[in-house]
Amino acid sequence: MADSLELSVVTSRIGDVRKAIDAAGHPALYMVDTISSLASIDYRHDEWNVDVTVAGSQKGLMLPPGLSFNAVSPKARAASKHATLPRAYWAWEEIIESNRNGYWPWTPATNLLYGLDAALDQLLEEGLPNVFARHARHGDAARAAVRAWGLEILCADPAQYSNSLTAVLMPAGHDADAFRKLVLERFDMSLGTGLSKLAGRVFRIGHLGDFNDLTLMGTLAGVEMGLALAGVPHRAGGVEAAMKALVEARRVSR
Amino acid sequence: MADSLELSVVTSRIGDVRKAIDAAGHPALYMVDTISSLASIDYRHDEWNVDVTVAGSQKGLMLPPGLSFNAVSPKARAASKHATLPRAYWAWEEIIESNRNGYWPWTPATNLLYGLDAALDQLLEEGLPNVFARHARHGDAARAAVRAWGLEILCADPAQYSNSLTAVLMPAGHDADAFRKLVLERFDMSLGTGLSKLAGRVFRIGHLGDFNDLTLMGTLAGVEMGLALAGVPHRAGGVEAAMKALVEARRVSR
Amino acid sequence: MADSLELSVVTSRIGDVRKAIDAAGHPALYMVDTISSLASIDYRHDEWNVDVTVAGSQKGLMLPPGLSFNAVSPKARAASKHATLPRAYWAWEEIIESNRNGYWPWTPATNLLYGLDAALDQLLEEGLPNVFARHARHGDAARAAVRAWGLEILCADPAQYSNSLTAVLMPAGHDADAFRKLVLERFDMSLGTGLSKLAGRVFRIGHLGDFNDLTLMGTLAGVEMGLALAGVPHRAGGVEAAMKALVEARRVSR
Amino acid sequence: MADSLELSVVTSRIGDVRKAIDAAGHPALYMVDTISSLASIDYRHDEWNVDVTVAGSQKGLMLPPGLSFNAVSPKARAASKHATLPRAYWAWEEIIESNRNGYWPWTPATNLLYGLDAALDQLLEEGLPNVFARHARHGDAARAAVRAWGLEILCADPAQYSNSLTAVLMPAGHDADAFRKLVLERFDMSLGTGLSKLAGRVFRIGHLGDFNDLTLMGTLAGVEMGLALAGVPHRAGGVEAAMKALVEARRVSR
Repeated sequence: MADSLELSVVTSRIGDVRKAIDAAGHPALYMVDTISSLASIDYRHDEWNVDVTVAGSQKGLMLPPGLSFNAVSPKARAASKHATLPRAYWAWEEIIESNRNGYWPWTPATNLLYGLDAALDQLLEEGLPNVFARHARHGDAARAAVRAWGLEILCADPAQYSNSLTAVLMPAGHDADAFRKLVLERFDMSLGTGLSKLAGRVFRIGHLGDFNDLTLMGTLAGVEMGLALAGVPHRAGGVEAAMKALVEARRVSR
Repeated sequence: MADSLELSVVTSRIGDVRKAIDAAGHPALYMVDTISSLASIDYRHDEWNVDVTVAGSQKGLMLPPGLSFNAVSPKARAASKHATLPRAYWAWEEIIESNRNGYWPWTPATNLLYGLDAALDQLLEEGLPNVFARHARHGDAARAAVRAWGLEILCADPAQYSNSLTAVLMPAGHDADAFRKLVLERFDMSLGTGLSKLAGRVFRIGHLGDFNDLTLMGTLAGVEMGLALAGVPHRAGGVEAAMKALVEARRVSR
Repeated sequence: MADSLELSVVTSRIGDVRKAIDAAGHPALYMVDTISSLASIDYRHDEWNVDVTVAGSQKGLMLPPGLSFNAVSPKARAASKHATLPRAYWAWEEIIESNRNGYWPWTPATNLLYGLDAALDQLLEEGLPNVFARHARHGDAARAAVRAWGLEILCADPAQYSNSLTAVLMPAGHDADAFRKLVLERFDMSLGTGLSKLAGRVFRIGHLGDFNDLTLMGTLAGVEMGLALAGVPHRAGGVEAAMKALVEARRVSR
Repeated sequence: MADSLELSVVTSRIGDVRKAIDAAGHPALYMVDTISSLASIDYRHDEWNVDVTVAGSQKGLMLPPGLSFNAVSPKARAASKHATLPRAYWAWEEIIESNRNGYWPWTPATNLLYGLDAALDQLLEEGLPNVFARHARHGDAARAAVRAWGLEILCADPAQYSNSLTAVLMPAGHDADAFRKLVLERFDMSLGTGLSKLAGRVFRIGHLGDFNDLTLMGTLAGVEMGLALAGVPHRAGGVEAAMKALVEARRVSR
């Protein structure tokens, strides 16, 4: 699905898409996958009038995988009641009814809910604007590294850069998955893969969640050393460019 | 649903039900909920020709809640492909396809899968026959306690006693939920509730999973002291009867 | 050492001993081992004018073993500076100097210090008077069980009963250590051993720290079933007597 | 103490010192502090004829602090029995006696002993020669970074470089502790301090224990960015030089 692919490598202009749907008078439900961005990049389900938002515990919320979240508009709930398409995971009514009294219709993943409570405390203690600024700083630094390597970021429009993931296009003739395998074996680091038509052509660098300046530097160093060991044409200096970007940002901010 | 109610207080004769369905030539799928029994009481999905078995991580498998398991017959898979009923959690094909190569169609709850691996090691180290015998011993002892208290076990036929849960009928005029509340407040122990038409009339004593003779004794002591504090008519001596049953079983077995 | 033996089975009258030392005008340092009692039974280093108090993390403070604590009077510190006896673990000056600024003279067991911080929060949330009352209730109930079994408590004077440990004298001709071994093997419960001249003649039941009414009942049931399996002459009814004592205490207190 | 200072910044020639002591016919006990090197750099208590070796759980053994280890020669044990100097932590005889049967004279830090068991499994699975080679690779790379920065390594003789710690001399007029504070605040990374006469003049980069290529790169990036933010005269390129060293080592070894 093209949408979900783009979501993972650019920051979609969610509000603008809503306006376009409304301008066209189109009745479609508007669904947004925020798995790789919630709590890393600003997002407003209500204000942007989204119908169904999907999120997960395992990225910006800094938890193990196992919890998924839906925010659902009245329009989507109404549509759900009469929908006849086979579906999984979209039986909201029972959950909403049960949640009203603090319960679930079945046994929930309680240990992850306790973890979620702690993760939200951490995020609110840091402050969401600071969390978003941290991700913006890391997104800038990661892109500075990619440019210094002379490689191409898979996002043409700077207005849509993602601050939680940076997708990098492999030079022609080099397989992204072979490169990812080498990095995993040599440096014990798992880079993201390209999906569907980008399979084998792209690798993704994640920089979100429980992540700081030095984990970013370790990450970028793993990519730069991997490029050297894999014989992928590139210039050295990516990590150095990222450090310069971070030092610059630090000088300004505090 | 009558079936799920019974499952939680008796041991259903799964194989016999299968034979009855077959004898009647009925085309229904045969679904069995083993949430409160898997890895505590003997169960054979294939041998008993069940169509869909449902299980969870949080009882006999000794893990936090968060994983659910389905075993699915070819007949159920075929039916699923053409079913038009709205449903949640029954989209098997994608999972089966992905599992074939060791993957999942989405991010699984990895920490619970590691826990499952450890739990299965523990169960196999103890040996399933020993695990089942342990639960049988605890079921016998729990029922001995209930009888000594002069209360009624919610299962008329000894052949169908459950070795993982014992449901106890409250004497007329006494509310099971008020009793459960007192036990929770005074002894920090959560007893199970009666479902649907048994609501308020029954409390359930769980004795399954990571459970030994002394946790059973603590559990039964919590019930016996709760009965005294709540003024529920009963005879003392339940814990003592359970100890006698366990000592007897130990003398025989080793 | 007679003192440490008694400490573990009775509650020593620390203040009275101080007065006796002072009345005799004896210059000895007064040292008290509170390992099995701190945070379970009332204790006052300053008020009782003790010279050296020793405690550990692993009992009333509910932590793994690994931390030991000393409270030291000015008199003991002065004596320590000039003492020539070989000794281990009594080099206070360096620690006191370093602690003044929040440091240690060497790398401390930081994970246990974090645990200690959490354990103290728990104790203060429950309230020390409630913590002491809980241990008193459990001490009473454990002694009621021993009496019902017809066995002898190793403490003649009720004024000196210990609320954190109950030592039980084995009937003549029965080896306490063989009994402890059987209980460990059958019920996975480790009873304390008798020390020095009581070796083999006594077993100790611990009831302190992170401990509630139902863990006490599980503990006493393990002893009662063990006595039956070991063929130690006793009367049944110990657990029942303990439950009666607890129910009575609950009726009065709340 | 000069010895312990040097131990932390160079690799002492333990065997050579032994030979010198023997050649001089000097009766002194030979004691070696391996806290920052055991399980990171080759060490042979028996072969090098050391009298007392001291180690701790918190560095190469990858555990929280809390355990300390002594290896003791017969000569040191004999001396200990008659020593009259006040001392802490050197009462070996009781421990040795008790250990013989698998016990301790007091309650040991059991959770750390379980951790030690797991840590030793990890070390043996990696293989000690590989563990030492990994630390050697990281020591080389760290020193390459320091040289690229144009700073001075506090060890004149390459034969004595430490592979677990690299001490860096601050340029005149710059306070090492102020620099360490900035790095801690900005990058949440704690660098080691200079001891005694090196206080304020040196900072130490640890690269030992549970440590891989990318944690080293994150560490060196924290130093390089800290030097920039603190205005310490240096050349950029340290991280890049370290990456080159690692890539080179990887090309050769596998």
